[in-house]
Parts: sequence; C-alpha cells; structure tokens
Amino acid sequence: MAIAAESVTEVCRRARAASLILPGVASADKDAALTVLARLLRERTAEILDANRVDLDAGRDAGLDDALIDRLRLDPDRIEAMAVGVEAVRALDDPIGELLERRTLESGIEMEHRRVPIGVVAIVYEARPNVTIDAAALCLKSGNAAVLRGSSSAAASNAVLVGIVKAAVAEASLPEGTVEAVAGGGREELGELARQRDLVDLIIPRGGEGLKAALEAVAEVPILYAASGNCHVYVDAAADLEMARGIAYNAKVQRPGVCNAAETLLVHEAVAAEFLPAALGDLAGAGVELIGDERVRELSGDVPVGPAAAEDWDREYHGLKLAVAVVDSAAEAIDHVNRHGSGHSEAIVTGDEAAADAFTGGVDAACVYVNASTRFTDGFEFGMGAEIGNSTQKLHARGPIGLRELTSTKYVLRGTGQTRG
Amino acid sequence: MAIAAESVTEVCRRARAASLILPGVASADKDAALTVLARLLRERTAEILDANRVDLDAGRDAGLDDALIDRLRLDPDRIEAMAVGVEAVRALDDPIGELLERRTLESGIEMEHRRVPIGVVAIVYEARPNVTIDAAALCLKSGNAAVLRGSSSAAASNAVLVGIVKAAVAEASLPEGTVEAVAGGGREELGELARQRDLVDLIIPRGGEGLKAALEAVAEVPILYAASGNCHVYVDAAADLEMARGIAYNAKVQRPGVCNAAETLLVHEAVAAEFLPAALGDLAGAGVELIGDERVRELSGDVPVGPAAAEDWDREYHGLKLAVAVVDSAAEAIDHVNRHGSGHSEAIVTGDEAAADAFTGGVDAACVYVNASTRFTDGFEFGMGAEIGNSTQKLHARGPIGLRELTSTKYVLRGTGQTRG
Repeated sequence: MAIAAESVTEVCRRARAASLILPGVASADKDAALTVLARLLRERTAEILDANRVDLDAGRDAGLDDALIDRLRLDPDRIEAMAVGVEAVRALDDPIGELLERRTLESGIEMEHRRVPIGVVAIVYEARPNVTIDAAALCLKSGNAAVLRGSSSAAASNAVLVGIVKAAVAEASLPEGTVEAVAGGGREELGELARQRDLVDLIIPRGGEGLKAALEAVAEVPILYAASGNCHVYVDAAADLEMARGIAYNAKVQRPGVCNAAETLLVHEAVAAEFLPAALGDLAGAGVELIGDERVRELSGDVPVGPAAAEDWDREYHGLKLAVAVVDSAAEAIDHVNRHGSGHSEAIVTGDEAAADAFTGGVDAACVYVNASTRFTDGFEFGMGAEIGNSTQKLHARGPIGLRELTSTKYVLRGTGQTRG
Repeated sequence: MAIAAESVTEVCRRARAASLILPGVASADKDAALTVLARLLRERTAEILDANRVDLDAGRDAGLDDALIDRLRLDPDRIEAMAVGVEAVRALDDPIGELLERRTLESGIEMEHRRVPIGVVAIVYEARPNVTIDAAALCLKSGNAAVLRGSSSAAASNAVLVGIVKAAVAEASLPEGTVEAVAGGGREELGELARQRDLVDLIIPRGGEGLKAALEAVAEVPILYAASGNCHVYVDAAADLEMARGIAYNAKVQRPGVCNAAETLLVHEAVAAEFLPAALGDLAGAGVELIGDERVRELSGDVPVGPAAAEDWDREYHGLKLAVAVVDSAAEAIDHVNRHGSGHSEAIVTGDEAAADAFTGGVDAACVYVNASTRFTDGFEFGMGAEIGNSTQKLHARGPIGLRELTSTKYVLRGTGQTRG
C-alpha cells in the first residue's frame, strides 16, 4: 500500500514540474507534439491492436458484456479516427495567452487579463481507450500537464497509447512529465489521486454514477463532473407537429445510452390529441417503452402507455424508455423542466417567438434548444474539437468541456513604481 | 434544532424561487432597486446607527478587542460610503445577457453563448456590517438571489441593513426572496446552509481560516474561498533600488493585516549589499519585525534581523513581520514564490524586460506585478466596483470576485428542425 501511494505521488510530482514549464511553451511546439502523436498512432497501429487484443481476451474471460467489449475494441478505423481527432485539436486556436481584457487602472498600472493553463489536470475514465488520446491531445494543446487514469479493463491498450503519447512529447522536446499515467487499479489509487491537493489542480471524472460517488466521498482536489442528463423535449401549442415528431424521435432513439438523449416528452394540451398517437406510435415502433400521466394514457390511441410514478420524472433511463406528460402551458413545461431536469440539454418545439424566448430564458440548463434535438450538445457539434464530457455545473465550465474550459486566467500588472496610498 | 434547520431551508427556498425570476429582470429594474437602496441608506442613517450602538455595547461587554470593535463600528461617513458604493455598482455594465460567442454550427443551428446569473449565492462573513450592503448590491446587479449570513456580533446592525435592502427590493418590485438573511448564529446554522445543495448554488465565505476550516468539513455546496495571501516582493538585480524600497515598504506596512500585503521580501544577491541596509532600516523604523536567512543577516548592517526557520517562508503574518531572503537569480526567486506562495499577488521590481517576462510568465498566481505594490489587488483598484474578496482558486474565478465572477453561462441554440444523423 505504501508503495502504491508513493508512486501516485511521484507521478503527480513529475506532472507538477512539467506544469510549471508548459505555460511558456510556444503554440508551434505544442502543435509539433500533436503532429508527431497523429503520425505515431498511424505508424504503430499494429502494436496498438496487439495490446487491445490482450484486453479483449481478458475482458471476455472476465465475462464483460457485449456493450463493454464493443467500447473496449479498437480497429484500424477507430485508430485512424483518433489520429484525425488529434489533428482536429491541433488545428484549433491555442487558448493560452488569449487576452481577455487590457486596461489602464486609475493608478496608472497597465492591467492585462490573460488565459493560462490550469496546471495539472487528472482525467479518470472508464473502458474506452480512445479517451486516452482525446484527453492527452486537449491537455497538450491547452498547456496543462495531464495525469490519466484509465480503467484496468483497458490496461494493455492504454499502456501502449500512453507510451505513444510520451514518445511524441519526447520527440517534440516538451517536458518529461507533460503526460503521465496512473496504472489502472483499484479505488485505492483513485483515492490517492483525488487527495493530491498540492500537486493536482483539477480532476475530471468521465464515467458513471459509481465513479462519481467514489470520488465525492474522498476527493480533496476540485472536481469537474462530466455529468448525467435528464433531458426534456417540450412540444408547444404552436409547434410544427411534423418537426416535433422528428425531434422527439431523434432525441430519444438515435443514441439512447448517452447523456444528451431525452428522457421525458412534454406536450401542450392544445395539440396533445393530434400529436400523441402518431408520435408515440413512432417511438413504440422503435421499441421504446412508454410511460405517461393520465391524460397521455387517454390520448395515446392504440399505443400502449404504462402509468408513470412520481419518481419517474427524475430518472435517466439510459435506454429505450420515455416518460410522457401533458402540460397546460409553456410556463408549466418550464416549471416541470426546472423541477426535474439535471440542467444538461432541454428543447422546445414551437413556431411562437414569445414561447421560445420564455423557454430559453426561463429554463435553467447548460444548453437550451429551440426547434432542434437535444442530441447536438457535444464538443464536436459545437465546433470545439474534442471534448472531455459535458458539465452541468454552473461554476467554471457549463456545457461541453473543451480547450477553453481547461484554462484559468492570470492578471499581469505593469507599473512604474506605484504604491497604494 | 429542528426549527433552526427548517428555517434555513425555508429561507433558501424563497431565494431559490426568486432566482428563477431574476435572470429575466431588466437592467433598469435592477438599477432602480440599487437607486432606492442608496437613498434608503441615507434616509435611515439614524436607525442604522442606533442598531449599531446595540452591537457595539454588546461587543464591549463581551470583551471584543479594539480592532474588532473598529470593524464593527458604523458612523455617518461609513454609511455614506456604503451608499456611494451601491451607486458605483449600479453604474457598472450589467453582466447578464452579455454575448460571449455567436456562431452558426455545421448543422445550421444558430448558437449563442451568454452570461446568466449563477442562481442562489450565499455569502458568509464576519464582523464588518458594510459587507451586507456590498454583497447585496453585487448580487442584485448580477441577477443572483443572495442569502446573507453575517456574524452574531453584528446582528442588530445587519438586521436593520437587511431590512433596508428588502425594502428597496420591494419598492422596485423585484421578487420577494431576492435578498434573504440567515440570522447570525452558531456553526450549526452554517452547516445547514452549507448542505443546501438543491437550493444554493455557491457559498462565498469571507473570513479567516477558522471559517474556512468549519466550512470545508461540512460543505456540500460549491465554495469559492476569498483566500489568504502569502505574497512576495522580489527585488531583481536590475531593479531601481529607490523604487524597490518604496514598493517593499508599501507592500508590508501600508495595511499589514490584509491578504494582499507582502509577507516575504526576496533580494537578488547582486544588489543585496546595497539594498538591504536602507530598505530594512525603513521597515524596522515602521516597527516591522524582521527575520531572514544567513546572507540577509550578514548584509543587514545595523538593522536587527532574527533567524528565519524553514516554516517561516510559508506563513502569512497578518501583521508587522516580514521574512527576507537573498536569491542568486530571478529563476530562484520564481521557484521560491511557486514553492511557498499561495497564488495571490506577487511582485518583481526590475528594469530588465526579460526578467519581468520570466517572472510574470513563470509565477503561478492570480495577480503578478512588475514595478508596483502587491497592495493593488482589489476590486475597486481593478475597476470592478465592489468585490467579495479575492479568489486564489484556479477554477471559475481567480483574483477579485466582482460582478462577472458572480455569473455562469448558458448556450441557447435555435434550429429549424435539426436532428442528429
């Protein structure tokens, strides 16, 4: 135990040392490391696939289900996608040094407010090995030292990927501790990592509620949660009902396991009788289990809708299940969303500008949509390059966590001998 | 106990309800409340002074020391200063609604990224009753509902001041729960407040290390600490030594009890023999107790300098005491600051651009000064109006906590029926 503790600290100490140098590294040098990283991923594809096969075999022996095995699996296309992702991050503007404000104070001091790296960012993630590359690329570009902690199920794949990142860091002459890894292991090492308040500035967990709970119990380092989403689609009285059918279907069915998929459909009573039978028919046809309030169950026509219990409005189903309610007004929809939503992504379908403004102003969430699917909440879709999940926190970062969200700021003040009177 | 718990929750619930309305309140209406507030402070000065006399008498009976009594004391000038402060906040630009980014996504969705209020902000503070008005004014302007928790020693003064704020809120027709107060009381009520994660979005403690420790132990709500400062002045080889004398003196002596005062003076060895006797003489003449490393003690001339122990470099003295060291280079100074500083305010005195750039780039702190005193780190000096302390955190807000630091952001996305493929 003492050895594991020392080794986590040792790893974080190397990252800390690198983090003191990285803020001053030129954009071109960081980009050079990303260029090498993309090249090495392509050159060493066979080696990555060999290591991945070890993880897949071990995973099958351990009885991992097909979904987990699929998330763990790499193939040449997925590795090429990682390399392309690295090149996409390289192509973004360097956030570091960005001038947020420049002003001469009354004292005559010249004040500049600039973006700087956060320092040491630890990223804790589960099965998918591509996160190793996404996280490393975002931290490299934003001048942060990264401490990566993948899951033990991807240990062999991650070891090779981290080795490739370290080779790119070395070839581009960036500091040695720029990207470090804590070997996948038990909750104990996670706890060690989460208590390094003198060495680690931020932990971003990217995983399920179990990981979140494990971290909350022990963390002394600030945490930015890539959170779950209880998202809603509200079909207003003034909605284009064909458009609403398409959006409701897409938000629930296109990829039901992700955080920006819809969990609840709210329908204005004025259009419920016309809208519900067809829309619910689409959803049931796609295998969606439907539950609803009394009015929905009366108006659903031939489509079977089970009863919704009070607690169902607070649930994220992570699958093909949807709760449906009829509301009397846009105000009631807004109230429902604020009461039950998790502040992730919320949509209104309406042709009425006033209703749209009431919804976008009144709903308290990271991303509020008018006439579009909640599924667009995503760093790529938002033009931010890769992302490390989505934040539903209100502090520091809200929405997709990209390069800018991996920065802090610094005031630099230049005087001519000013003292305070 | 059960009654106190219910009442903290009840207070927070009213603030929560107000926080759902405040984001949509027009700037003019918020400014109207601030206008009324300034007027009522002036009109009701006698009433405030009567209440303050009750607190002062109780404080003297309880044996509070002169410094605390002075912080507690209000007089007509201090009340006028509060009213002027409210008018200064009113005159600032409204941060809410500020457009941070607007872009058309590849999907054709129009994306806007705007500033919004955080929601419910709790501010916990100690003796000075003027914080009640500063905090209320900043929260009003930034569209946050405020829950104020002053100290029991200022209970009578704060009760009248909160009453005046509530009267201004009512006269301007803002929602009832816009500014709420939790009666000053024990650590138990503080704990209740700090656990309201469903109702309170942020707690800002403004007080000593005892308050910080008490909150850290129990808080479930995110905290933004208005932190302590272990600040340094580094006198470089290329410093104008007269300027350096003035800055070192000002940073230590002008107001030694505050967080942006200097605790350590670092001097380059090339100028130490010339600089130290005169500079240390100034400081000793002002009653500053000096401690130093061996070289400082050799070079201090007639000025008595005690020996500094290893832990002295990490201390914030909050008074007339200063640790002094000689360093061999700017790089050593930067390393010392990063090792021992608290990331608050750090200064270099130099005529050498390269040394200045190395220091501002290499020092990891909220505010880095060239040729000016650390004492300028302050919301008023930075042109931000009032402030609620200074943050040394790297996340969300770093430096003075003003209006902008009391905001979050929201993405609003308008489409024409887009679904994700």
